[in-house]
Amino acid sequence: MEDYASAKLVEEKVFKDPVHGYVHVRDRVIWDLIATKEFQRLRRIRQLGTTFLVFHGAEHSRFNHSLGVYEIVRRIVDDVFEGRPEWDPNERLLALCAALLHDVGHGPFSHAFENVFGTNHEEYTRKVLLGHTEIHEVLIRVSREFPERVAQVIDKNYTNQQVVSLISSQIDADRMDYLQRDAYFTGVSYGHFDMGRILRVMRPRKDLIVIKSSGMHAVEDYIMSRYQMYLQIYFHPVSRSAETILNQILKRAKHLNQESYHFKFEPYHFKPFFNNSVSLEEYLALDESIMLTYFQFWMEEEDAILSDLCRRFVNRDLFEHVDLNPEEEPERYAWLIEQVKSIGLDPEYYVSPDSTSDLPYDMYRPGISTKSPIYLEMPTGEIRELSDQSHIVEAIATKIKTDYKVYYPKEIRL
Amino acid sequence: MEDYASAKLVEEKVFKDPVHGYVHVRDRVIWDLIATKEFQRLRRIRQLGTTFLVFHGAEHSRFNHSLGVYEIVRRIVDDVFEGRPEWDPNERLLALCAALLHDVGHGPFSHAFENVFGTNHEEYTRKVLLGHTEIHEVLIRVSREFPERVAQVIDKNYTNQQVVSLISSQIDADRMDYLQRDAYFTGVSYGHFDMGRILRVMRPRKDLIVIKSSGMHAVEDYIMSRYQMYLQIYFHPVSRSAETILNQILKRAKHLNQESYHFKFEPYHFKPFFNNSVSLEEYLALDESIMLTYFQFWMEEEDAILSDLCRRFVNRDLFEHVDLNPEEEPERYAWLIEQVKSIGLDPEYYVSPDSTSDLPYDMYRPGISTKSPIYLEMPTGEIRELSDQSHIVEAIATKIKTDYKVYYPKEIRL
Amino acid sequence: MEDYASAKLVEEKVFKDPVHGYVHVRDRVIWDLIATKEFQRLRRIRQLGTTFLVFHGAEHSRFNHSLGVYEIVRRIVDDVFEGRPEWDPNERLLALCAALLHDVGHGPFSHAFENVFGTNHEEYTRKVLLGHTEIHEVLIRVSREFPERVAQVIDKNYTNQQVVSLISSQIDADRMDYLQRDAYFTGVSYGHFDMGRILRVMRPRKDLIVIKSSGMHAVEDYIMSRYQMYLQIYFHPVSRSAETILNQILKRAKHLNQESYHFKFEPYHFKPFFNNSVSLEEYLALDESIMLTYFQFWMEEEDAILSDLCRRFVNRDLFEHVDLNPEEEPERYAWLIEQVKSIGLDPEYYVSPDSTSDLPYDMYRPGISTKSPIYLEMPTGEIRELSDQSHIVEAIATKIKTDYKVYYPKEIRL
Amino acid sequence: MEDYASAKLVEEKVFKDPVHGYVHVRDRVIWDLIATKEFQRLRRIRQLGTTFLVFHGAEHSRFNHSLGVYEIVRRIVDDVFEGRPEWDPNERLLALCAALLHDVGHGPFSHAFENVFGTNHEEYTRKVLLGHTEIHEVLIRVSREFPERVAQVIDKNYTNQQVVSLISSQIDADRMDYLQRDAYFTGVSYGHFDMGRILRVMRPRKDLIVIKSSGMHAVEDYIMSRYQMYLQIYFHPVSRSAETILNQILKRAKHLNQESYHFKFEPYHFKPFFNNSVSLEEYLALDESIMLTYFQFWMEEEDAILSDLCRRFVNRDLFEHVDLNPEEEPERYAWLIEQVKSIGLDPEYYVSPDSTSDLPYDMYRPGISTKSPIYLEMPTGEIRELSDQSHIVEAIATKIKTDYKVYYPKEIRL
Repeated sequence: MEDYASAKLVEEKVFKDPVHGYVHVRDRVIWDLIATKEFQRLRRIRQLGTTFLVFHGAEHSRFNHSLGVYEIVRRIVDDVFEGRPEWDPNERLLALCAALLHDVGHGPFSHAFENVFGTNHEEYTRKVLLGHTEIHEVLIRVSREFPERVAQVIDKNYTNQQVVSLISSQIDADRMDYLQRDAYFTGVSYGHFDMGRILRVMRPRKDLIVIKSSGMHAVEDYIMSRYQMYLQIYFHPVSRSAETILNQILKRAKHLNQESYHFKFEPYHFKPFFNNSVSLEEYLALDESIMLTYFQFWMEEEDAILSDLCRRFVNRDLFEHVDLNPEEEPERYAWLIEQVKSIGLDPEYYVSPDSTSDLPYDMYRPGISTKSPIYLEMPTGEIRELSDQSHIVEAIATKIKTDYKVYYPKEIRL
Repeated sequence: MEDYASAKLVEEKVFKDPVHGYVHVRDRVIWDLIATKEFQRLRRIRQLGTTFLVFHGAEHSRFNHSLGVYEIVRRIVDDVFEGRPEWDPNERLLALCAALLHDVGHGPFSHAFENVFGTNHEEYTRKVLLGHTEIHEVLIRVSREFPERVAQVIDKNYTNQQVVSLISSQIDADRMDYLQRDAYFTGVSYGHFDMGRILRVMRPRKDLIVIKSSGMHAVEDYIMSRYQMYLQIYFHPVSRSAETILNQILKRAKHLNQESYHFKFEPYHFKPFFNNSVSLEEYLALDESIMLTYFQFWMEEEDAILSDLCRRFVNRDLFEHVDLNPEEEPERYAWLIEQVKSIGLDPEYYVSPDSTSDLPYDMYRPGISTKSPIYLEMPTGEIRELSDQSHIVEAIATKIKTDYKVYYPKEIRL
Repeated sequence: MEDYASAKLVEEKVFKDPVHGYVHVRDRVIWDLIATKEFQRLRRIRQLGTTFLVFHGAEHSRFNHSLGVYEIVRRIVDDVFEGRPEWDPNERLLALCAALLHDVGHGPFSHAFENVFGTNHEEYTRKVLLGHTEIHEVLIRVSREFPERVAQVIDKNYTNQQVVSLISSQIDADRMDYLQRDAYFTGVSYGHFDMGRILRVMRPRKDLIVIKSSGMHAVEDYIMSRYQMYLQIYFHPVSRSAETILNQILKRAKHLNQESYHFKFEPYHFKPFFNNSVSLEEYLALDESIMLTYFQFWMEEEDAILSDLCRRFVNRDLFEHVDLNPEEEPERYAWLIEQVKSIGLDPEYYVSPDSTSDLPYDMYRPGISTKSPIYLEMPTGEIRELSDQSHIVEAIATKIKTDYKVYYPKEIRL
Repeated sequence: MEDYASAKLVEEKVFKDPVHGYVHVRDRVIWDLIATKEFQRLRRIRQLGTTFLVFHGAEHSRFNHSLGVYEIVRRIVDDVFEGRPEWDPNERLLALCAALLHDVGHGPFSHAFENVFGTNHEEYTRKVLLGHTEIHEVLIRVSREFPERVAQVIDKNYTNQQVVSLISSQIDADRMDYLQRDAYFTGVSYGHFDMGRILRVMRPRKDLIVIKSSGMHAVEDYIMSRYQMYLQIYFHPVSRSAETILNQILKRAKHLNQESYHFKFEPYHFKPFFNNSVSLEEYLALDESIMLTYFQFWMEEEDAILSDLCRRFVNRDLFEHVDLNPEEEPERYAWLIEQVKSIGLDPEYYVSPDSTSDLPYDMYRPGISTKSPIYLEMPTGEIRELSDQSHIVEAIATKIKTDYKVYYPKEIRL
């Protein structure tokens, strides 16, 4: 068993990657994990869900991103941590595997999907690691406890918090990859920061990872990039419009199923989700190709709401939006609902409030997020949380407001 | 009618594009064309077919590329040709529409698909322009003859060959976009050339477009980039392996249908293609999401060949290859077939010869290609074909050899 | 006269520029200005003074930068403002000339030089425009008042404040060029922002220039880039060390001259500055080649202080620094002076306090700076100052602290 | 002594470099060499001589380039060769030092200078390494033979030809740095190639370095970049015009000195060169600041030829050129000389033939160049010269023609 854990490929393999240049693989375990069907499935799930309907370049998959996260962790452990007394080299393979596999439980259009069906990609990641999967078969060859250890790292409760921090903290490899990758594929000029510099000043310390204070400005730049990417890309109102329609489609299909509606095209793959009884195999059988296929088929359904919403999504005929917080302006919201009713549409499906606090992105807010904050190590050895030290970061951390919008069909002219 | 042809948007719209920075739209006609369902459908067809299985970044769609070709033509006509006496400004909208729509008849994985079913994307482009489509409805509003004129430009038989050359020649906007775009998304360093410089020295002349000879070196660079992209990306042997399996899947499904095999999952969308009687609507109903969905379903089919080939494609378990031209080494080829038989596989589906001359990419070979060559205009006004003037280009044009490979399952160890 | 103002080159000329791609020149006036000896002289003055001793790429000249500022203004007036009713097209040439010439009065290592000799580059810019120069000869051909108008724009008191704002405001072409150019040549990853987007949302309004509020995030990004460039490049402590030595060299030479010291190598070019009586010709005769030549010669002087300081500068043997504000910690400062004395050095020349508030860079602090702030135009037409609208900018504008250091020879080990 | 050779800095030092990201220094010897005055002097010598007068970004120094060559060799030996049996790790420091110091004997505007005065920068490099210099003092601390070994590597006669090839062959670190660096600073889009890939497939073999054949296309791309850079930048006719004037200035000054002309401003630094008796110290005392200073002073000389040529150079009033090979068209050349005489100018100084074969750049021409060619290692282990294997390279290697021009003052209108 030990042999497999340390087995190297005869010759290093590389993947050409537009963000990191190359992704380097020398470990047989990593190579074998990439070849599993569960990992290959990530090619059929987009990294940014519906964002490609606004930024046409954003068609990249979670497969891309997962390789990128792996590569960043590999650079940290091989080029920066190796040989340092505070870093246990026996954790290397664990860190690499957790990085590669951290998103393996994601389903298609996860955010909307989980919203409607109550599934949880973190729970499914655990199941992929520990269940009857090709990934599990690879991991168990390393050692009997290895799959569970990978799961613990991804669940953030592994004893060695250094390993957890690499994958999941306020400046983890996950975020560093997606900020750069999403910037690259959308083509925006935000999202660039000097990752090389940040990696070079990362240091393993007891139970955590610190950034040497000489790298503070590079970290500030990273925080500012993150802020810009959130406002410009992740919180983009038109992308949230597509998301909203997706939500409504799934909600309608679920509702029709409850009502025993007879589908022309049976939602075979969705049944387990409608019935809240989903096997791992059923979960993994669904991807974005299949969801898009259903939506195209459902454009022919007799149910006017389902077919209309599908048509809107497939042909990109999205909803309009208005700045409106229903709780603060209940009358204006009620008026909007009336408008929708007046043109014969059901507000349940055609009026959708949405706020950025519903999104799975968190600004840097130490003390609020459960993720470990960014620690600077001063020349004296003292360790300080970043926003204590940086005025800019403090400003960003404290001043972000939630943005409230309500989406509605553009047939209504406000 | 004239009004619609010249109608401008109140405010210019832009699409953020990673290759060109921004794609600018001011014309209402262009805006309306982009919103049609037939154009939106291009989002579900990858620009590089199966290449994403080798270069993981290459997940970009023909939608991306089509906007890019439009933008290049827009820059040429608006920034370079406008005001020059040899250019007829009345051709502007025609050039823009033809650029935007030149690929609109492409189906999913066109190359393999057309190979097996004998369809032709150029023929379908014409049908999309002239048939009962949203695109046709937009074009006909410009003028009664306009849809036909767009089709003629794309078919290369429009009277004004300047317009044809913009879209389809050895240095057209189509190629300039895809070389750069495919380089960007794959992440390779080839594929860069100074397009800005080339555009600036393009000039409309009687019946053709020339490049001022001061730009010769930029054009040489473009030819060299093209050469490198072909060898590195488009002719990549592993990408051709995926293509080969795709071919075999379609061939097998067609065969099973002829044999009246009972599919668990009916190839509903493929029936018209099996029967060689495809309506435009049926053609457009197929895209890569749907094909991938079928392949996933077919992994469960009882036919061992179909299910195995689908599994290989979906999970990226590709064929190996060997350098071998069956015509030149028939015995070695026969031997390989025997090897495949000996492990119980049908060589009809598990041995696939492939050569680069089967691919839809042509090197620069003036006199052989039907596309108009690259003309340099010397300071004297004399016009010369590029390879007459450039030693490098002459070398590239004459020295390319066809590469022959045979693909086979990796269970066989040669 | 009118003819010359509107004369165009037969063919557009371009300069290849690493930051903007190309600098385009069509106006004869601009072409003639670039060819003047006073403009060519800017090739011999580095944009970032002594910074190349820390960031070795920063060897670029003010010639580069001046072309860049011109090009940005050209893009604004030709591509964005042209045709808008609030913009007077008769101001175009004036704006271009002022952009090109705004730095033409800069001397070698201006900051240190002006510090010691009390010269003022803005005053000399005016003299170059209005005195007996080749530049004046070109400008006067446009019209009798034209040189004076260019001077007024650069002095910020021209009546049309739109033109002034293009060259000199909190988001002027000067800053937009140098931030990007200095980032490019130093190689840092800060300094990038989406200038294309900012230019596209700039609008001329009565007496000012506004940014449409849809571009606010691009402007925030610009402000954050600026903040990072200041902290990382312009305020870099080692670069300030070189500056400090330069100051001391000039101070010592001036002092020696007052003391009638007999120079081995006569400071012929410095005499007018020592005597506070400098003609325009004498001013322009000095550039950084000549200063460096003197410093190399002076390494052979008998005066130990002058020769030592010159050797340190030429061979890059710079001073160390400590965080210390003499006013706040007078005893620690006095102690440092004693240390320097104790190794036989004169603290007058070997102890140099320096603070970032002495530097010619200002953070964005509306109300404090004399430069006009950044105005956002809301969709309602209302105009707001940026930091009223942006929390990030407010934070940056209010939280910057001055950094105090004292420089001393590294022979002293603190 | 051994200690010093292996001494490491407490903490790795980095230089921010726009081309390579960072230059990394861990060896004390390298750190000490960079601090020497002879190495710092390279800051005052431009990498591309007079090219900045055509490509304004090309103001970068040989200091930049030397650090870059060092960094490339460091990456090869530390990241690729280390641990391979064919590579002797004891050669590491030698390779790094030779890379860093290979240009240390270059004088100002070397090409023109050597042309007129017959000096030789390779000879002076040897003198700097072995003479009374700070560099020698550092090297001798490594071992008694070390300075001589460094000199042998740079002279290409060191016994281990692997080390020589790193610094000096058809694909050495010198060329790989300057192609990329010159492209970066001029801003041209040529000059990019995938150096990362080339480095990764370099292998040490007995007496040579090979490139694994899987990297052939990356090497082709390098050869094509080189070809483009030569034609576009290094052979640029306007840059050669400035070079021509420089030659004439030096020739005139030498002539005047021979004629015992009384200079207003004594050519103190040039005397040793005029008299062909130059000490190392005198050689190193000259740099481009000083040359430019002389040229500015000499604009005031009474000799009309010298002052006029200096004015042309300083104010960039360059010569025109015509395609003309005096040997092939003697009559046309004679006629041009007559034209120059007819306006009262001395053709000795105002008519300058120049051909690209005079330039210090060689295309890839195996068998002609003395530098070792590029070897590919085939999968079989067989070693082949690149142009045997690559049609493109063969074409480039055989088809380059020399370009002949004659330069003359633009007062003559041909």
